[in-house]
Amino acid sequence: MDKADIAIIGTGPAGISAAITAAQRGKSVLLFGRAGLSQKITKAEKIRNYPGLPDISGADLAAALKRHLERMEISITEEKITAVYDMGKGFALQGSSSAMYSAAALIIAAGVVPSALYAGEKELLGTGVSYCATCDAPLHRDRPVAVIADSPEEEGEVKYLSQTAQTVHFFPLYKDKPDFGGNILVHDDIPKEIISPDISTRRLMTDKGSYDVSCVFILRRAIAADRLLPQLETKDGHIVADRLMRTNVGGCFACGDVTGRPYQYIKAAGEGNIAALSAVEYLSQKEE
Amino acid sequence: MDKADIAIIGTGPAGISAAITAAQRGKSVLLFGRAGLSQKITKAEKIRNYPGLPDISGADLAAALKRHLERMEISITEEKITAVYDMGKGFALQGSSSAMYSAAALIIAAGVVPSALYAGEKELLGTGVSYCATCDAPLHRDRPVAVIADSPEEEGEVKYLSQTAQTVHFFPLYKDKPDFGGNILVHDDIPKEIISPDISTRRLMTDKGSYDVSCVFILRRAIAADRLLPQLETKDGHIVADRLMRTNVGGCFACGDVTGRPYQYIKAAGEGNIAALSAVEYLSQKEE
Repeated sequence: MDKADIAIIGTGPAGISAAITAAQRGKSVLLFGRAGLSQKITKAEKIRNYPGLPDISGADLAAALKRHLERMEISITEEKITAVYDMGKGFALQGSSSAMYSAAALIIAAGVVPSALYAGEKELLGTGVSYCATCDAPLHRDRPVAVIADSPEEEGEVKYLSQTAQTVHFFPLYKDKPDFGGNILVHDDIPKEIISPDISTRRLMTDKGSYDVSCVFILRRAIAADRLLPQLETKDGHIVADRLMRTNVGGCFACGDVTGRPYQYIKAAGEGNIAALSAVEYLSQKEE
Repeated sequence: MDKADIAIIGTGPAGISAAITAAQRGKSVLLFGRAGLSQKITKAEKIRNYPGLPDISGADLAAALKRHLERMEISITEEKITAVYDMGKGFALQGSSSAMYSAAALIIAAGVVPSALYAGEKELLGTGVSYCATCDAPLHRDRPVAVIADSPEEEGEVKYLSQTAQTVHFFPLYKDKPDFGGNILVHDDIPKEIISPDISTRRLMTDKGSYDVSCVFILRRAIAADRLLPQLETKDGHIVADRLMRTNVGGCFACGDVTGRPYQYIKAAGEGNIAALSAVEYLSQKEE
């Protein structure tokens, strides 16, 4: 199991800034996200207000940030974190590859999740609603499952599930829906609600009908922060943090869009710096 | 009188970031500070954690920030603001040149003032204790005055005072003390306290003796924020600001070191962005 002083979830400007400052302060970091960095950076056409880098394109800012990480020998672990557990004296993180990681402090820089939750999703998460196909597929062997996905990047997970499940009802929420065949049934329904008619059945209600399955897998590019670590205090979909980027969970810090507006690159980078220094301070107090 | 939507005090990373974002949002700005930017930037040897600009020297970061300002056609008004007045529907700012400025919103990014206040300074400010030689010299014509200065840049003010005052007791707090002659008496005492034996006399107490004068001028590179605008709420020498960089004074925002630790360039730049957007939001609500 990979271990570090500080785990950082997210490779936008907040997470990268946190990783740079934490490394500068001599801490080991596990930085989780896309090696190509957050799409929110790379897809920006022109950024005019990142002081020192006037009129930079998103692609060029991403390249500059990657060079900075390389210069400090910080690597990105390409893994989507699907759950975090507060172990009292540190955090355990579960990746979608089913690998586990541990860290003494945690910084959440996961950005904002655009999509709203489905009715029933929060209540049933962990009992027939799952964010991790790799982790939970074996629990639903030879039974029907449903998969809701917001990007084609999740199609590998759908195929993986089809190897163990009896039937996969697949609900791609994007254009260019795939045509898998076999035991994967691709639907163009819009999912609405998940209910629990009995202990071993989850019923996915859509705009067109309903599907009884053993588990509903919901695969999003980002996972809402309060689903990652349910005891986190949130407000209006953002993690509540103070000016030192401390959350209500000891040892857990947050920065960037996930903590609220304004959604700005330089704001996120500034908060990443603060979160890292607060995490360093937290670790030094723990050692005393 | 120069007017702007937003007045910004300070040309460190916080003030510059605020000016850039305010200009991007179409607001007119008055940016007060050194044209050579804050010494805290230019004197930094190497900055390793400003994301996107790895291992940059302070001088190079200052150059990059100046280029950014030029690119956005933002000029720096070289003026030390010595007092701010909340006019209810805007702010009036007094410069050390005695010029006045006005703005609908105010962002304080003045950095931290390293020196502690002298005993009696706060109580007597405005009545025989002054931060502005140009403004108040005429009030003390043909009477003895004292000047305490923390940098050789203030020596012009000392000479100016000597033209109207009877005697100038000068207390330079830096090395390489000047030798003026004439009616300027240069001392190497360490000032300790200012008291008021009667209504027209201020007594400057030092480690070596005492000096009875008409006014004690205290000339610092930066002025403590709660002296600029006395109704500002401060704590431990910092302006109290919330996560949107709002202070307790409506229309007045603060960012950077002046709002507290960590004292970091990228943190300051991030807060400047937030302060500017909060000021823009404040102005748009006022218009409604």
